Amino acid sequence: MMMDSDLTPMLSPKSVAVIGASPEAGSVGGLVLNYLIKFGYQGKIYPVNPKYGDLQGIRCYPSIKEIPEAADTVLVSIAAKYVIPAIQDCAARGIKTAIIATAGFAELGGEGKKLQEELHQVIRQQGMRVCGPNCNGIVNFYENATLCFSRFMEGDKIHQGNIGFITQSGAMGGSFIDRCQDRNMGFTYYLAPGNEVDVDVVDFMSFLVEDENTKVITAYVEQIRDAQKFLQVARRAVEKEKPIIILKVGVTQAGAKAAASHTGALAGSHRVYEAAFRQNGVISVEDFDHLLATAKLFSKSKLPRGNRVGVLSSSGGGSIMLADRCEKYGLEMPSLSDKTKEELGKLLPSFATIENPMDLTWGAFRGGPEAEQKMFKIFADDENLDIIVFMMTMVAGERARGRAISMVATAAHVDKPCVTWWAAGNLAGPGFRILDESSNILFKSPDRCVKALKAMLDYARFRNQHIGLQNVDQKITVRTGDRSRAQELLRGKAGLTEHQAKLILDCYEIPRVREAVAQSARQAAQIAEDLGYPVAMKISSPQIIHKTEAGGVRLNLTKKTEVKDTYRELLRRGESYNPDALIEGVLIQEMVNGGVEIIIGMSKDPTFGPTIMLGLGGIFVEILKDVSLRVLPVTQKDAEEMIREIKGYEVLKGARGKPKMDLKAITDILLKVSALSMDLGDSISEIDLNPVIILPEGRGAKVVDAMIVRRTDPTSES
Amino acid sequence: MMMDSDLTPMLSPKSVAVIGASPEAGSVGGLVLNYLIKFGYQGKIYPVNPKYGDLQGIRCYPSIKEIPEAADTVLVSIAAKYVIPAIQDCAARGIKTAIIATAGFAELGGEGKKLQEELHQVIRQQGMRVCGPNCNGIVNFYENATLCFSRFMEGDKIHQGNIGFITQSGAMGGSFIDRCQDRNMGFTYYLAPGNEVDVDVVDFMSFLVEDENTKVITAYVEQIRDAQKFLQVARRAVEKEKPIIILKVGVTQAGAKAAASHTGALAGSHRVYEAAFRQNGVISVEDFDHLLATAKLFSKSKLPRGNRVGVLSSSGGGSIMLADRCEKYGLEMPSLSDKTKEELGKLLPSFATIENPMDLTWGAFRGGPEAEQKMFKIFADDENLDIIVFMMTMVAGERARGRAISMVATAAHVDKPCVTWWAAGNLAGPGFRILDESSNILFKSPDRCVKALKAMLDYARFRNQHIGLQNVDQKITVRTGDRSRAQELLRGKAGLTEHQAKLILDCYEIPRVREAVAQSARQAAQIAEDLGYPVAMKISSPQIIHKTEAGGVRLNLTKKTEVKDTYRELLRRGESYNPDALIEGVLIQEMVNGGVEIIIGMSKDPTFGPTIMLGLGGIFVEILKDVSLRVLPVTQKDAEEMIREIKGYEVLKGARGKPKMDLKAITDILLKVSALSMDLGDSISEIDLNPVIILPEGRGAKVVDAMIVRRTDPTSES
Repeated sequence: MMMDSDLTPMLSPKSVAVIGASPEAGSVGGLVLNYLIKFGYQGKIYPVNPKYGDLQGIRCYPSIKEIPEAADTVLVSIAAKYVIPAIQDCAARGIKTAIIATAGFAELGGEGKKLQEELHQVIRQQGMRVCGPNCNGIVNFYENATLCFSRFMEGDKIHQGNIGFITQSGAMGGSFIDRCQDRNMGFTYYLAPGNEVDVDVVDFMSFLVEDENTKVITAYVEQIRDAQKFLQVARRAVEKEKPIIILKVGVTQAGAKAAASHTGALAGSHRVYEAAFRQNGVISVEDFDHLLATAKLFSKSKLPRGNRVGVLSSSGGGSIMLADRCEKYGLEMPSLSDKTKEELGKLLPSFATIENPMDLTWGAFRGGPEAEQKMFKIFADDENLDIIVFMMTMVAGERARGRAISMVATAAHVDKPCVTWWAAGNLAGPGFRILDESSNILFKSPDRCVKALKAMLDYARFRNQHIGLQNVDQKITVRTGDRSRAQELLRGKAGLTEHQAKLILDCYEIPRVREAVAQSARQAAQIAEDLGYPVAMKISSPQIIHKTEAGGVRLNLTKKTEVKDTYRELLRRGESYNPDALIEGVLIQEMVNGGVEIIIGMSKDPTFGPTIMLGLGGIFVEILKDVSLRVLPVTQKDAEEMIREIKGYEVLKGARGKPKMDLKAITDILLKVSALSMDLGDSISEIDLNPVIILPEGRGAKVVDAMIVRRTDPTSES
Repeated sequence: MMMDSDLTPMLSPKSVAVIGASPEAGSVGGLVLNYLIKFGYQGKIYPVNPKYGDLQGIRCYPSIKEIPEAADTVLVSIAAKYVIPAIQDCAARGIKTAIIATAGFAELGGEGKKLQEELHQVIRQQGMRVCGPNCNGIVNFYENATLCFSRFMEGDKIHQGNIGFITQSGAMGGSFIDRCQDRNMGFTYYLAPGNEVDVDVVDFMSFLVEDENTKVITAYVEQIRDAQKFLQVARRAVEKEKPIIILKVGVTQAGAKAAASHTGALAGSHRVYEAAFRQNGVISVEDFDHLLATAKLFSKSKLPRGNRVGVLSSSGGGSIMLADRCEKYGLEMPSLSDKTKEELGKLLPSFATIENPMDLTWGAFRGGPEAEQKMFKIFADDENLDIIVFMMTMVAGERARGRAISMVATAAHVDKPCVTWWAAGNLAGPGFRILDESSNILFKSPDRCVKALKAMLDYARFRNQHIGLQNVDQKITVRTGDRSRAQELLRGKAGLTEHQAKLILDCYEIPRVREAVAQSARQAAQIAEDLGYPVAMKISSPQIIHKTEAGGVRLNLTKKTEVKDTYRELLRRGESYNPDALIEGVLIQEMVNGGVEIIIGMSKDPTFGPTIMLGLGGIFVEILKDVSLRVLPVTQKDAEEMIREIKGYEVLKGARGKPKMDLKAITDILLKVSALSMDLGDSISEIDLNPVIILPEGRGAKVVDAMIVRRTDPTSES
């Protein structure tokens, strides 16, 4: 990773040049100059345009070479063909960073792509850091460095705060800031890396993790180019307790297709992104509504101690809707403590029912602000509650303001997240404004409110576990194996047979069925006798990977004569299926009774590299696509989470009187496959252990069938 | 159902009295009087309060008995204990309808409940129609009859339109109207039935179905009291092409608990509500956001002809997000026709890519409004497209207005739903306002936009099918059976044995396994020989319903001696399990090989009555709770939909090379169970056919085990 400090001149410039500055109000150069002046940027501004002597009262220079100092950064907005010479001039003038707004590069494909490649060479040679091209710029909200032409700056002010925002789409990004500003949410940076010829979304993330003013990092992401760099930044962010909240688009196949045409690059599978995010404490959100709500919550609240919600509600219906959401997202709504009931009992009239959710419709607001605040305070202090939710309905004008003031007083008093779902529209605006300026967080929908709380709880849990793991050094859970023996087994060019794959599993002590390859009918019978009946028999040939398809599998053989006959039959079938196949013999395997079939696999994602997959056999994988994924390597915690994540967990943990399966054995195999894949990843492109039989608790597991695909195999796709 | 015209004096009053009118601005009587005057109600107003001679310049009467005419309706807001006498006075004065705002009735339980019961008796005797008590009133937006104290009327105007809204929570309802009015959505009626002592949510729905101005019916529902009345109204609404959109709360267990404490009544299971809605073309939404979005779409748009979406987008990222949603909700995004491509090709510069979604970021808006509108028109006219979606980003002020005007021109031109997702915040306000006043429907989120379109497509599909069914008279798909024989079999008091249940199934020709009850070991062997091996054997006793639990089931018996031994063993087990049980013998059954196990059941919902359930056996039902439900009776279309609705459909239709199962046989059993349940519903509380074996296509199905619970059985819950 490049040093983040390289980006400081770009992101906190003491002086800026604008190449392509213009008097035209609607042009990029005109807008940028206008915003810099309007919002009072304190550094030096050097407009560059040979056509003008001065612009908006500032001296304008005919060329970047002639500005009086090497500006910290330069915004470039001239025709694409002039960009590279201009960048070379910048370098010559000693300028270290640039933001290239100009479009017409890789996003066009063909010639544009070539031009971007040239640009890449030039900035590499010159050692410059460049944002763009085809970006709408960056804004430093603390220094009013508005090197950006997004129209979210058309208003009177830009809102300073603690949220850093990075966007791979300038148009969507600017829109998002505008919506946030409507809700008084404040930012440290707006960062649009455009085509990412140099600085990318992850570089900006890395910068924000270290930035003092930034408390929450938010991003709109279409594609991450360097997954390893991203995972490093994500881990650093967890250490620094800076939540990263990402809206990743291109979820479905149709979306991914549009994504590819937009970025000119393949988007990795969305499920792998999701897995990588979960694994590293990154918060994933579905849309801008949820991004806004979650960012707002993290920006203003501390982490809750637990998931127990207390509700103070102006509507019975509102309580129902909140209860629905709490159940949906796994938050609890416990009873109040006896102490709280007693204290409230002294204070409230007899017809007020004191419970959680607490219905305020009996006239709670008739007693005036002091009584309200006292009541709220007692409720919010309840030791059974970790989070306080206010539910407000149709109150207008000054009355709304009064309610908000009481709620804010409560939020200021308690050391717990305090949030409000206010169902009314703009007639309650005076109340909204009070809340938006306070530490009580306003939501306009119960779903967004509780979903944001859920995201925060997940983050808090992840962080606690992560810190816990660091303390006891449990991170060293990786298994080791006999790597050199495995490498030896992987030599060669032909496909690996099932038995060869098993021998590689043996190097990492991955448990499997007992088996041996027979090369005659007599030997087959001998092996079967040794293993004990019943046995399975499978044709063994490096050229016959799909054995069932070839008719090369027989199960449940119980007699010596059957085994001998089957041996001969399988050879015949193998030969007729593929006359050119080299048939090594027939694999004789013990049969495993009972247990549950699972599938464990490893494959390579174009973005995140080797990933591991777990699923239950049969309909769970085939019909429900019920699998969990992680990017390798996995820790014990990851492996345990993978097991709990699948719907099939209900089967594994022993549903309806059936025995609990050996979950430790699954964890163990996942960790060993992880170790194997990390050691041999260069040689292996795919592993498929299908099925693995998991036996009841304490009795372990056995890989029944295994396929390992070499990276160099003709069937390999990577 | 009561005549809806009974409600006309209440909902379209020529004169109103306000009992409890008051000069206090914050009181109910004060607010109502104030709103009537402020919004210019044209009828006569009669304030009633003995304390005042006049109020706001209007003559005030000491008692309702003294007002100069029998007012069409009266709003009552006095202490609970005075309400009944006041209602009696109203009746004496010849007043036919009343709206009782006063709280302190059933919602308090105990004494309040009794008071409401008394009120019920009085209005029944007097033949009055009453809304409330404990309601915030009704508003007729066309006549400015604002008999309501909800503060959504604190603004300068109330918005007239074509949406009728009914709410079982006044607080939530008023809030919703306020939010809608912020978006320029207009209403015909706001109707809050409160405790529903007389007029309930369904009565109001029925009124709105017949109301000329109302095009869309929306409702916030906690509970429907009379399901049959509701289903009738829903059917009538489909005929009149008036969509009913319902937000039903109390979804989860926690939510339902809160619902019960709120309404003082049990809420029916949410899944049955959902099933009843789907079955009757009622649109179900999850929250107020979705209610608002869906109401807005239906209010302004005609139904689309198909699900093919064309997108004109100011952002590649925006296109991705829309594509994601379209895939999620089953909308298509087809290619443009050659004609459109050709016409646009002539018009647009060479670097503009002409496809769907069409990206406008190449500078589509630089050509001015005329060029924009021409381009939009050609695109929107494409014969491959049924719905046009505009995607706008960060445009501010006048520029936003300009864009909106071009989009509105397109919407006005084409005979297709035209909608806009505009991602920006309030800086684009001038554009929002143009759209909100046009037939182009503005959404602020892609999810709400596409989800609303999906709801509309579902509704259009339902209506088309419904009309189709009426034409070919396919509704007569109900099976018939030998009802009197079944009734005879149902006589008696002891529990029905499995075999007795089967005999009842026989009356409706529901296919089942061959079986007979043996009363001796010798007879058992004879039956087994007749059936053919293997057989199953089960203890047969009206007192042993859970046969497996009693150890009373044996499967796969293949020999005469086994059958004899098993007969004796089962008798012993039955006796030791329940020494008092009357054991009739042992049931001998054929075993069915192959096929897929399903479960079909009938149970009674407290709200909707008999409902039928279908699910796949094993993990689908036990772990995934994957079942489909319908309210009885079901049509063939319902039955077919039930099959397609479950996830297990993938298994039934023949996944991964396995045979397709006999779906017609499932439909047939569902229809027969429907007929049986409708005929014998008074005598039966529960039916459980578990398992039913479905064989491959053309080979039918067989009920293996059956349980029928009499309504009078001690184990029956209904």
